[in-house]
Amino acid sequence: MGGGTGNYVVLRGLKDYPVDLTAIVTMADDGGSTGVLRDELGVLPAGDVRQCIVALSESSELMRNLMNYRFDESFLSGHAFGNIFLSALEKVTGSFETAIEEVSRVLNIRGKVLPVTTQHVRLKMILKDNQVLESEKEIYLSKRIDQGYNAIFLDPYPKANPEAISRILNADAIVIGPGGLYTSVIANFLVDGVTESLRKTSAIKIFVVNLMNRRGQTTGFKVSDYIRELELFLGEGVIDYIIVNEQQPSQELIDRYSEEGDLVECDLTDARIIRAPLLGALDKANKRDILKRNLIRHDSDRLARILIHVIEEAKKNVGTIRS
Amino acid sequence: MGGGTGNYVVLRGLKDYPVDLTAIVTMADDGGSTGVLRDELGVLPAGDVRQCIVALSESSELMRNLMNYRFDESFLSGHAFGNIFLSALEKVTGSFETAIEEVSRVLNIRGKVLPVTTQHVRLKMILKDNQVLESEKEIYLSKRIDQGYNAIFLDPYPKANPEAISRILNADAIVIGPGGLYTSVIANFLVDGVTESLRKTSAIKIFVVNLMNRRGQTTGFKVSDYIRELELFLGEGVIDYIIVNEQQPSQELIDRYSEEGDLVECDLTDARIIRAPLLGALDKANKRDILKRNLIRHDSDRLARILIHVIEEAKKNVGTIRS
Repeated sequence: MGGGTGNYVVLRGLKDYPVDLTAIVTMADDGGSTGVLRDELGVLPAGDVRQCIVALSESSELMRNLMNYRFDESFLSGHAFGNIFLSALEKVTGSFETAIEEVSRVLNIRGKVLPVTTQHVRLKMILKDNQVLESEKEIYLSKRIDQGYNAIFLDPYPKANPEAISRILNADAIVIGPGGLYTSVIANFLVDGVTESLRKTSAIKIFVVNLMNRRGQTTGFKVSDYIRELELFLGEGVIDYIIVNEQQPSQELIDRYSEEGDLVECDLTDARIIRAPLLGALDKANKRDILKRNLIRHDSDRLARILIHVIEEAKKNVGTIRS
Repeated sequence: MGGGTGNYVVLRGLKDYPVDLTAIVTMADDGGSTGVLRDELGVLPAGDVRQCIVALSESSELMRNLMNYRFDESFLSGHAFGNIFLSALEKVTGSFETAIEEVSRVLNIRGKVLPVTTQHVRLKMILKDNQVLESEKEIYLSKRIDQGYNAIFLDPYPKANPEAISRILNADAIVIGPGGLYTSVIANFLVDGVTESLRKTSAIKIFVVNLMNRRGQTTGFKVSDYIRELELFLGEGVIDYIIVNEQQPSQELIDRYSEEGDLVECDLTDARIIRAPLLGALDKANKRDILKRNLIRHDSDRLARILIHVIEEAKKNVGTIRS
């Protein structure tokens, strides 16, 4: 459950394991190509769904590249082909879910991608100084969120996609994050029915903590700050495991990132914390891949391995760990 | 062999017969959505290829509708999704042929679609009064072509797609037209190697005469005028059969069409002429289909039936008819 490249990283890694995957995707995104398509075509946000479909695709590299292909010229400049694909299908069928199903079929995906809601919503935030941020894009770009906020909400308050709720209730494990704390993670909790189901489900809930803070958004946040924010919506004790990276990036990378944000430090030591080296290697392939914007990022395979390990251990210890 | 909706009509009908179909498509189109994509992305013309792929598709109605879906709002307004699909794949792969193959695979087509050339060309025409028409679009829109022309050519003079030549040489039968005489039919003959192969092949060559003339283009043309124009490029005796509609449209339809053009009359009686009732019925489905612009149009099934009949008869009489 999440949005953006966080979902992509988790799904791409887990795809190699014999698990039944469902991506639950925030519908708050309204920036970039997705935002323009939303505004001009009246469709639901396609970008995060596209990334999940590509992550789960067992189709050719060509088709996956096509989905992520961004036109760099003409009136199409900046638009990912996959976003146009999903939006055109939504226009033809009148249903975003049908569009997702059809693109999922064409891309031959393993698993399922579900929008957390099928209502058209805007993510809004009222900061401590009463400034109102009117969209996900404004929130994402704001450098003033670390002053704290009075409210964050989806407008209108949407009903959850019933299938997403059903998957939450029937899951063995739910992975939340990584991703933008407000725009990709908490944005899902603001949908009517989601936090209730997360409290109700017997699934193991695992939170993957971001590697880096975003300056002005989560400046100086430690793991406990992330958990505090989550628990504001979920309540205490809902998160069973917290996956934290213990690997130090090179000083060179940290310096390069310093404008954008700082490393998330782990200040918790309780039994929920699972530490592992989770940094993605920097190699030639990364320069061309979807995650090129994130030089400090999770390694899909390492993250998947630890997730599967945690889930298997939890199954063995069921009744002891969760007591 | 042709372009535009003519190819669509022929292919859609023949698809139901156990024949190995190849569509050879003009690359002269530079109007509408196709023209904008050509100009702005530097791709080859997608529109006619898209129509052929849809005609040959055995995929769901949804996928065929998607390919032909034209956005009617936003910066995408007027663009067919299938054109964007083909053009994005051409940008990703660097090859229009690979793009066609990939879309053909996704749309699960029976047969093959081949561009007559893979060079970027413009169709040009120098009229009798020395006016130069610099593009297919200018030629298509001109109402002054019926004064006659000094020259028609592709600029630059392109080499044929070798696979198209090979298919011409190895075919049992070649269907030419219907379609815009200069922009869809003769445009193919202007590619280096095409008329030579049409003269060389032992395939039966069948020309399907248009139902209607276009005012200012082929005003008052009779069947003999069409054949004379074709023979200017092909030479005499290359066309074996000429399919002519013998069914009279309603006066109401003729009146509605009178601005655009007049019915093509048949003034030939030689053995090449095959007459049949070929008009498409006007029904609810047509209003929504790709051909809605053409109220007087060929019926795919009737046309296919007569084409198959002619080919089978010709095979029986081989050596007698063609002597």
